[in-house]
Amino acid sequence: MIEPTQKRISDAIIRRLPRYYKQLCDLEAAGVDHISSQSLGERLEVKASQIRQDLNSFGGFGQQGYGYPVSDLKTRIAKILHIDKQWRVVIVGAGNIGKALANYGEFGKEGFEIAALFDSSPSMIGKRVGNLEVQDSKTLAEYITKNNVDIMALSVPQNAAKELMQIAEKTNVGAVWNFSPADIFSPNVIVENIHLTDSLMALSYHLGNKEKQ
Amino acid sequence: MIEPTQKRISDAIIRRLPRYYKQLCDLEAAGVDHISSQSLGERLEVKASQIRQDLNSFGGFGQQGYGYPVSDLKTRIAKILHIDKQWRVVIVGAGNIGKALANYGEFGKEGFEIAALFDSSPSMIGKRVGNLEVQDSKTLAEYITKNNVDIMALSVPQNAAKELMQIAEKTNVGAVWNFSPADIFSPNVIVENIHLTDSLMALSYHLGNKEKQ
Repeated sequence: MIEPTQKRISDAIIRRLPRYYKQLCDLEAAGVDHISSQSLGERLEVKASQIRQDLNSFGGFGQQGYGYPVSDLKTRIAKILHIDKQWRVVIVGAGNIGKALANYGEFGKEGFEIAALFDSSPSMIGKRVGNLEVQDSKTLAEYITKNNVDIMALSVPQNAAKELMQIAEKTNVGAVWNFSPADIFSPNVIVENIHLTDSLMALSYHLGNKEKQ
Repeated sequence: MIEPTQKRISDAIIRRLPRYYKQLCDLEAAGVDHISSQSLGERLEVKASQIRQDLNSFGGFGQQGYGYPVSDLKTRIAKILHIDKQWRVVIVGAGNIGKALANYGEFGKEGFEIAALFDSSPSMIGKRVGNLEVQDSKTLAEYITKNNVDIMALSVPQNAAKELMQIAEKTNVGAVWNFSPADIFSPNVIVENIHLTDSLMALSYHLGNKEKQ
């Protein structure tokens, strides 16, 4: 068994790994022992050769002719993605998106603990959202430092994002999961953007071109 | 002025265009007339040469030495993205994410009209979410056909996604904006996936590797 190598892995591969992982979870739940790259590829519309190449970039998996052992591969991908540990998440912004994130049960299953929810609006502070009580954003920095928060999810308006990034940098939070429309960068904090409107615009591009044909 | 060419544009470029567009909207609102690729690049952490190359792939914009005319470029990118028209969207699934989408005011501004919200649960049907009354999913196909729906947003559990994709194909809806965890493909329908858990896992990958260093 070869340990995952430390070389630079492309973003495209990192984006495919969660999809492989999810399929492997489904296969394991269905009692499937082994799966070929061919079958896995058909379920995901990814070429078998692509899957083999992706997994090879982390060292070797599986054995030629036998396919991949489902549970083992699942566990190893979880390890590569570091979802075998527990990450502590706080959500900042208890608007529609923030509430949806707070109530989304899937994250807990994958090791992401939604520990707290913050908002700056007096009308929201103290309200309950799911199991959480909305806390005052003024106490955010202190909370992060005291509670070893790993990830800050930002579901705030564009103009609030910058100040919150400063808090993220100051408190050494590891990563920001950004739902605000702001374009955010930081040399010290990992940023993962979910720009909903951008995604709709990309869809619109394809839709408009399809209609023209 | 050169018209946008019809050659195949890479997905990476299509993903950057909404970011350019958003910056140009902000610049226009701030009264800026012209902007160089250099300044635009600094605001977006994209290389100036990348921006010039991206925009060149749609024909020529701007004039060497003068920078890009902000309003004109904004309008032309809107046209390329087809957000200069109105798209009709229905949301299927009135859970947390569906409600957040229904209440998210940004979409309307960019030409995406949220026309209706559907759910299959008797406890949700008839309830109000923002300006919409939740309709019975059983009437979805009929609604789409009668109202020329362009985009179906899916915020349903994984097991419901497949059946809804069949409705999308049957009713000739143009595109599906998929928030369900299901991996969805279709030869006829454009699919844009927002897999929240996958995004968190990609973030986890980087976070775990950062901690190891």
